[in-house]
Amino acid sequence: MLPTAAHAAQPDGKHEASDLVPLWTKAQGRPILSPPYGQPSGYEAKVVRVPIPGRTNTTAAASLTPLQNLYGIITPNGLVFERHHGGVPDIPPEQHRLLVHGLVDRPLAFDMNDLQRFPSVSRMHFLECSGNSAGEWKAKGSTVQITHGLLSCCEWTGIPLAIVLQEAGIDPRAKWLLAEGADAAAMTRSIPMEKALDDALLVYAQNGEMLRPEQGYPLRLLLPGFEGNTNIKWLRRLKLADSPFMTREETSKYTDPMPDGTARQFTFVMEAKSVIVRPSGGQTLRGPGFVEIEGYAWSGRGRIRRVDVSVDAGRTWQEAKLQEPVLPKCLTAFRAPWRWDGAPAVLQSRAMDETGYVQPTREALIAARGLESYYHFNGIQSWQVGGNGAVENVHA
Amino acid sequence: MLPTAAHAAQPDGKHEASDLVPLWTKAQGRPILSPPYGQPSGYEAKVVRVPIPGRTNTTAAASLTPLQNLYGIITPNGLVFERHHGGVPDIPPEQHRLLVHGLVDRPLAFDMNDLQRFPSVSRMHFLECSGNSAGEWKAKGSTVQITHGLLSCCEWTGIPLAIVLQEAGIDPRAKWLLAEGADAAAMTRSIPMEKALDDALLVYAQNGEMLRPEQGYPLRLLLPGFEGNTNIKWLRRLKLADSPFMTREETSKYTDPMPDGTARQFTFVMEAKSVIVRPSGGQTLRGPGFVEIEGYAWSGRGRIRRVDVSVDAGRTWQEAKLQEPVLPKCLTAFRAPWRWDGAPAVLQSRAMDETGYVQPTREALIAARGLESYYHFNGIQSWQVGGNGAVENVHA
Repeated sequence: MLPTAAHAAQPDGKHEASDLVPLWTKAQGRPILSPPYGQPSGYEAKVVRVPIPGRTNTTAAASLTPLQNLYGIITPNGLVFERHHGGVPDIPPEQHRLLVHGLVDRPLAFDMNDLQRFPSVSRMHFLECSGNSAGEWKAKGSTVQITHGLLSCCEWTGIPLAIVLQEAGIDPRAKWLLAEGADAAAMTRSIPMEKALDDALLVYAQNGEMLRPEQGYPLRLLLPGFEGNTNIKWLRRLKLADSPFMTREETSKYTDPMPDGTARQFTFVMEAKSVIVRPSGGQTLRGPGFVEIEGYAWSGRGRIRRVDVSVDAGRTWQEAKLQEPVLPKCLTAFRAPWRWDGAPAVLQSRAMDETGYVQPTREALIAARGLESYYHFNGIQSWQVGGNGAVENVHA
Repeated sequence: MLPTAAHAAQPDGKHEASDLVPLWTKAQGRPILSPPYGQPSGYEAKVVRVPIPGRTNTTAAASLTPLQNLYGIITPNGLVFERHHGGVPDIPPEQHRLLVHGLVDRPLAFDMNDLQRFPSVSRMHFLECSGNSAGEWKAKGSTVQITHGLLSCCEWTGIPLAIVLQEAGIDPRAKWLLAEGADAAAMTRSIPMEKALDDALLVYAQNGEMLRPEQGYPLRLLLPGFEGNTNIKWLRRLKLADSPFMTREETSKYTDPMPDGTARQFTFVMEAKSVIVRPSGGQTLRGPGFVEIEGYAWSGRGRIRRVDVSVDAGRTWQEAKLQEPVLPKCLTAFRAPWRWDGAPAVLQSRAMDETGYVQPTREALIAARGLESYYHFNGIQSWQVGGNGAVENVHA
C-alpha cells in the first residue's frame, strides 16, 4: 500500500540534516497582497482551460476543465468550463434586470438588489454540458480534459426560484417556463414548472464569490442535475406558459436521434457517470508499485451510491472508496488502491446512483442509442496503461 | 418574509416586455479563454484582501478576507487570508523536500512526487489565525473584514501525516514533533504527536487546485481546528522528539497572559465562535422590511450544533437555520430572517458546538481572561443598526 521511492536522508556527518537550508529560506519572500486578489503559482501555469481541438469559432465555443489536475470536489472558479453561444457579455450589475412574466398574476422586474434581498441558500452541485464526452461515441480524445472536461462542480449561492415565482403569482395553467439569457445568442430553453418549483435556483455566487463573467454574471439559472445549457446564464427573462416554446436549442439542437428514426427531446437529466482522472490519457506512471486510482462520479438523479473500479477492462471489479461528503447532484470523488505489476492494464470506473441506475458500457450505450446521437454519452471510459507506464484512451 | 421592492413590469403597450432587449444582447460577447485561467468580473474589483490597518511591515504581515462579500462556506483561493512571518518564498516544486527525522527508525526525505504517490484525502476545514478578532479585546474594527478577516475555509487535499510518519517508523519515546517552514522566518512550532496521528494532513491542494504560493506552495501542514500558525506553510522538516521545542512562536509569541500573572501556552484549539457578516459594520440597510441575517460559525472541536441570533443585544434569541453540509472543524453558514421595523437594533450571534461549549459574551471572556491577552478572542460580536440603516461595531 505504500510507495517505496522515499529517499533515505543523508546528512553529511558534519552537519545536522536540518542545516541543509534551502536558498529561499535565506531571503525575505514576496510581500502580502501581491496581488490583493491572489493567483496560482507560476509553476502551475500549464493548469488552464483549453479549447475543444479543431474548433475555430471563439464565441460559439467551449473551453475544457483540466480534470487531470483537480483535487477534491470543488472546481476553482478560474478553471470552470465554458460553453457560450454568443460570447461573454459585459453586464453592469446595477443595470441588470430579471423579468418574470407570461402566465403570472402580475409581471415583475427585479434588479440585483431586489433579488439579493430574498432568502438565499448555498448548495454544491456539478454542472455538465450534455455534449460532455460526446467525442467518445465514435473517436477517442487524448486526455481526460479533452474527453470529459465539460464538467465542473461549485458551491452555488442563490434564491430558490420557487420563491420568486410565487411573488409574481403562478397561474395554474403554467406548466413550462422560458428562460432567456442576455447574451448575444439570447440563449433560450423551456423548463418544466415541476423543476422550477423543485430545486431550481437563481444563482448570483459560486465558490464563495460573485459569479464569474463566463458563468453568467450577475445572474444565472441553476437546475441541479439538468444538462448544462438549460442552466441559462446572464438570465434576463422567465416567461410562464402552458406548453414548451420549442426554441432552436430544443429542436434543431440538444435532441438525441435514435436508431428507429425518432428523436428524444427534453432529455434534461444527466444520468450517472464516472471517469478516472489519475491515471488518465497522456499521463505516465513512474514505475511499478502503489498507484492510487482517483476519479469522479456524479448523477443528475441524486447521490452516488457506489463506484467500482476495474484494472482488467471490466472482467473483475473492486469497490472504490467514496470521499465524504457525498452530496446529491454533486461530484463525488472516489479512490481505489492498485499495485501495478508493470504489465499492460485497462482501467475503468462504473458509477451507481441512489436510484440503482448503473453506468453502462460504451457497447451497451451504443446498442440502445445507436451512433447518431451527440449528447448524453455516459458510457464507461477506458484508459490503457502500457508496459512503459504510458496511459492512453482505448475503446475496450 | 418577502421583499417589497420588486418593480412592476411596465411594457409600453406596443411592445412585449420581452422586446426591451439590452445593449449587450446586440453584439457578440468576449471570446472563450479570455483569459485561460479565469478572473473575477471587473465590477467586483473592490472585493479583495486588505492589510491590517496601521501595519507597515509587508513581509511579517497579514491580509484579511472580505467576509462581508463571501457566500457559502468555500473561500475562493484568491481571497484566502495571509499571515506571513518572512514573506512568501518562491519554491520550485521539483526542488522541494520534506525531511522526517529525530526519534524515527529511519530518517527520510521526500520530494513532491514521492509524497503525492501516497493515498490522499480531501476535507473541508476552516483556518483561523489565533489573532483573529484580537482587536476586539479593547477597540472596535470598522468592518467584519477588519475584525474577523483572519478566517477562511477551503477544501484541502493531502496525505494523512500518520501514514508518512509510520513510513519513517515512530520511536515510542516521540511525544512531540517540530514542524518547520522553508520561508525566511523558518517558522517553527511544536505539535503534539497525538494531533499528528489524529487528523493532521500534509496538504498540497486547496479548493481543487495546487496550493497558492501564499498558502504554502508546494506543501503545508494542516492541523484541523488548531490555531493558524501551527499549520506550517512551505513545510520542509518534521523532527520527532520527547518534549516540545520551545520555539519563539510558542514562548514569546502565541501564548496568553492571564490575570493571575501566569500565561497559557500551547492553546492550540480554536474554540467555538461565530460572526454575522450581513448586515455588518460599514454596510447600510436599504430600508425597513425583510432582512436576512447571514453569518458563519465554526469550532476547532468539531461540528457546530446550533447558532442563536439576537436583534436586541442579547436580551432575546432566535435559533438560526444552519446551511448543510455541517462538517466538523469547518465553517457553517447560518441564516435568520428578520423584519426590521426601522428602529435602532443590536445584532449578535452565539455559536454552540457539539461538545456543548457556548460562545461567551465579550464581558464573560474578559472576566475570565483579563485584558492582557492578544490571541484567542472568541467573544460574541455586536453590530448596531442605526435608525438610518447604517451598521457599526459596538461593544454591547
